[in-house]
Amino acid sequence: MLVQKYKDMLSKKSVIRNLSEFATARGQEIGYENVFDYSLGNPSVPVPQAFTDEMVRMLQEEDPMTLHGYSPSLGITSVREAIAASLEKRFGIPYRKEHIFMASGAAGALSHAFRLVTEPGDEILTFAPYFPEYNPYVNLTGAVLKVVPPNTETFQINVPAFEEMLTEKVMAVLINTPNNPSGIVYSTETIQTLTDIMRRKSQEYGHDIYLISDEPYREIIFEGVDAPCVSKFYDNTIMCYSFSKSLSLPGERIGYVAIHPNCKDAEDMVYMCGQISRGIGHNCPPSIIQLAVSKVLDQTADLSVYETNMNLIYDTLMELGFTCVKPGGTFYIFPKALEEDANEFCKKALKYDLVLVPADSFGAPGYFRMAYCIDTEKVIRSLDALRRFVKEEYGRG
Amino acid sequence: MLVQKYKDMLSKKSVIRNLSEFATARGQEIGYENVFDYSLGNPSVPVPQAFTDEMVRMLQEEDPMTLHGYSPSLGITSVREAIAASLEKRFGIPYRKEHIFMASGAAGALSHAFRLVTEPGDEILTFAPYFPEYNPYVNLTGAVLKVVPPNTETFQINVPAFEEMLTEKVMAVLINTPNNPSGIVYSTETIQTLTDIMRRKSQEYGHDIYLISDEPYREIIFEGVDAPCVSKFYDNTIMCYSFSKSLSLPGERIGYVAIHPNCKDAEDMVYMCGQISRGIGHNCPPSIIQLAVSKVLDQTADLSVYETNMNLIYDTLMELGFTCVKPGGTFYIFPKALEEDANEFCKKALKYDLVLVPADSFGAPGYFRMAYCIDTEKVIRSLDALRRFVKEEYGRG
Repeated sequence: MLVQKYKDMLSKKSVIRNLSEFATARGQEIGYENVFDYSLGNPSVPVPQAFTDEMVRMLQEEDPMTLHGYSPSLGITSVREAIAASLEKRFGIPYRKEHIFMASGAAGALSHAFRLVTEPGDEILTFAPYFPEYNPYVNLTGAVLKVVPPNTETFQINVPAFEEMLTEKVMAVLINTPNNPSGIVYSTETIQTLTDIMRRKSQEYGHDIYLISDEPYREIIFEGVDAPCVSKFYDNTIMCYSFSKSLSLPGERIGYVAIHPNCKDAEDMVYMCGQISRGIGHNCPPSIIQLAVSKVLDQTADLSVYETNMNLIYDTLMELGFTCVKPGGTFYIFPKALEEDANEFCKKALKYDLVLVPADSFGAPGYFRMAYCIDTEKVIRSLDALRRFVKEEYGRG
Repeated sequence: MLVQKYKDMLSKKSVIRNLSEFATARGQEIGYENVFDYSLGNPSVPVPQAFTDEMVRMLQEEDPMTLHGYSPSLGITSVREAIAASLEKRFGIPYRKEHIFMASGAAGALSHAFRLVTEPGDEILTFAPYFPEYNPYVNLTGAVLKVVPPNTETFQINVPAFEEMLTEKVMAVLINTPNNPSGIVYSTETIQTLTDIMRRKSQEYGHDIYLISDEPYREIIFEGVDAPCVSKFYDNTIMCYSFSKSLSLPGERIGYVAIHPNCKDAEDMVYMCGQISRGIGHNCPPSIIQLAVSKVLDQTADLSVYETNMNLIYDTLMELGFTCVKPGGTFYIFPKALEEDANEFCKKALKYDLVLVPADSFGAPGYFRMAYCIDTEKVIRSLDALRRFVKEEYGRG
């Protein structure tokens, strides 16, 4: 007999995936260049040439048995050393290879982090708006994801609600800054407040509360934005990083867990990740990708297009009278829909070939997400469609 | 607080890993070429050139955003189609892409298979001698691994013990043929007997019993050996395959699950694997590796060296009076030690720089494993050491 819980999941299709499929199908009718597809967070700029060059060099020059051989279960030692050195140089935290565990993207990193610090029934808190995949990621471990309602004024955190929900059952707090879907970067003040509360509650409850910091958008920060390094504020931080967005290679599944060197039991945690891996069938990211990424740690793809796109979209939204907090990073923007039901709003937008994602599943009903990782030329054309849509459907602009 | 079960695992180090580390350390003293390291199953022949050429071609010619973009959660469609077509052509079973789920090596494939068909507390049966990593792989899902004792005459299966242990609690039977560590290939008769019993018991208990067939050594079969395709014998078969050994790229983490087209609910199972992935943080093998492997599906590395090595070792073991069933495939051989305690035997062998693995953890105490995926020249030198060892310690030869 097949396991029912997975069978039951089959009927619930993600709204993002549905919209993305609509966009592809519509593209076959009118040409994909005419579909203003803001559904998916797939990077739209190429990987740095140095990555490609290093891949080709290794394939042509290195001994294939070594190159394609098993990685040690924690990751290739030289790669872990290079990542630790890069993090130390950048953030001034004395990471060593003992704190770095190589993982298959952020999803892989998070799956280890959740298992490190929660038993079935324990709670993990996160903040709306949030990445809806956190639900299966957490709930299928046996832990329980609880979502703090949003602070819609700023999309920073809702402090009173957080304090109330941070009960004794909470073993970890999961944050994502820069944030998918809001595009907001948590300020120094936010991180300070958040971690002060966590320290106080840890003491009160007599157990550690871990901060799991999901940071795949860390390198996509816009001009003048206060973007603090989360790990600096709280010793019991488990950083989960992915190179998917910074290097534009989401399909190659490469990231890492970085345990704060002052985290309690830090020396055991990476080895424990190695044990967790055995139970979930994760045996390191691919060797060749680990090695290639380690050569371009301090590089990124040319991420500037995302800020250009954001400014174009934000200015138009303002001109059209939308309510929207200006993003500080990522390639997402998160405006309020022009009617109460964002699903209805997004459905009407489809008539104009604008593919927008309603935010009910992100924990913020009434809002919608635009993933503007598309060509600027297309963004500009889409804004004409947006103007027509808003004028014809809502009499604005 | 960290989760104790993973912390507790830290103290239990694998005997294979310990011996491999000994071999490396000893190599630093006397030169690794002088250490006869039979500990690890790391392929010793290069990946086919066509794989390397295809990797380089894609890196140089393909659009990097597409090449390194997200894979669909079940795997890249064209890759799944190519694998289904290759399997159908070879085995005559009408696989379609709907039956293929791309996984990160055999470990990834197995982690999905176990979760598909067992709830916590359910039993999975396997046969000694067996790959000891099956213990954490299964037990960390919450299911329980039970091991049928070996048939030491042939290292085929122990039929009476199997019938007795195949109780109502068993939801899946896990086999590994060609077998690590014995090198034995299950015969047509074995598979027929095994699956007949499973059909009979399924009917008796009124629930399906799945056959999980772990086949990473499928392409390493020696001359004249009867090596049946397991899936042909039993509809409810979940094939778990890895390209690690056949293509010599264990570090690149690529394999698949193939559901038999006649398996009950076959059409749901691959989609269910996609749901399982969300909970274990597995999001497809790397895109570029999926694409490259799909171009060399019907190739293998030059695997002939393994049979050459096997014959040299087997003949010498026979000459020295060892008890040993001749391997039919893989790069393992599994002789009986010359004293009751194989640990003592292997310890003494280390004095001759022979690194042999005692088989207690493989479920067959008194035996040892040699992984002969090393250069033939080194095998020949090692046999002199073996002769000296056996003569000086046991007065034989």
